[in-house]
Amino acid sequence: MAETIFQKIIDGRIPCYKIYEDDRVLAFLDVQPLSQGHTLVVPKEPAETLDQLSDESAAAIGRVLPRISRAVMKATGCSEYNILQNNGTGAHQAVFHVHFHIIPKPDKSSGLGIQWPAGRLDGTAAESLVARIQQSL
Amino acid sequence: MAETIFQKIIDGRIPCYKIYEDDRVLAFLDVQPLSQGHTLVVPKEPAETLDQLSDESAAAIGRVLPRISRAVMKATGCSEYNILQNNGTGAHQAVFHVHFHIIPKPDKSSGLGIQWPAGRLDGTAAESLVARIQQSL
Repeated sequence: MAETIFQKIIDGRIPCYKIYEDDRVLAFLDVQPLSQGHTLVVPKEPAETLDQLSDESAAAIGRVLPRISRAVMKATGCSEYNILQNNGTGAHQAVFHVHFHIIPKPDKSSGLGIQWPAGRLDGTAAESLVARIQQSL
Repeated sequence: MAETIFQKIIDGRIPCYKIYEDDRVLAFLDVQPLSQGHTLVVPKEPAETLDQLSDESAAAIGRVLPRISRAVMKATGCSEYNILQNNGTGAHQAVFHVHFHIIPKPDKSSGLGIQWPAGRLDGTAAESLVARIQQSL
């Protein structure tokens, strides 16, 4: 994979507003925040998308998300927030090193904007799809 | 916390299109999908929002997200997707039991729609914010 700005931050070659660090994970403020406290949580392991990340790094990120979320919400005084992780340009990924966003949602106009074009699951199609997914697990 | 439909699914009192299960985690198809393969990954531990979830359950979910994502993408033939976890009504949470969405993004009109009102981080404010977040960690 091509070197990204997040790799340079992990390596200490570019500064960041660091919030948290352990052996596998680094968290820092997004410099183009959607709201105050917008934080990025990244694995130190290089992987472009979540499906390419090791189980161990993914577990390490999962483990610290509640703790970092609590701290961000306490510091900003915001109680509502979204966790978002994008994979692929079409899915709004801009930096190709896995990152989880913690995005406080203080009001309608700031934070993550969501459009939700929900459909309805067809039972027959669902059974076929579940079988195909389980075969791939 | 009030009993949710996800608790009933976990307890087996309501059926679901099950994809994956282990001691801590259950994954099943969303019955109101944003795209084919839209999957929910939930902790068996009851918690309304991610900040209330134990580190162990959060790690268990993180660990299986890459594996389930790979299987969903293989089964649907889609390569791009979003992981989303909402906390609070204002942040688009509808069921108050923690759940991570895996949402394939096959094209612009289906999957998750994202609005991204990015700002710019002010350095002085960032230093003060980082200090407050770190005090709360």
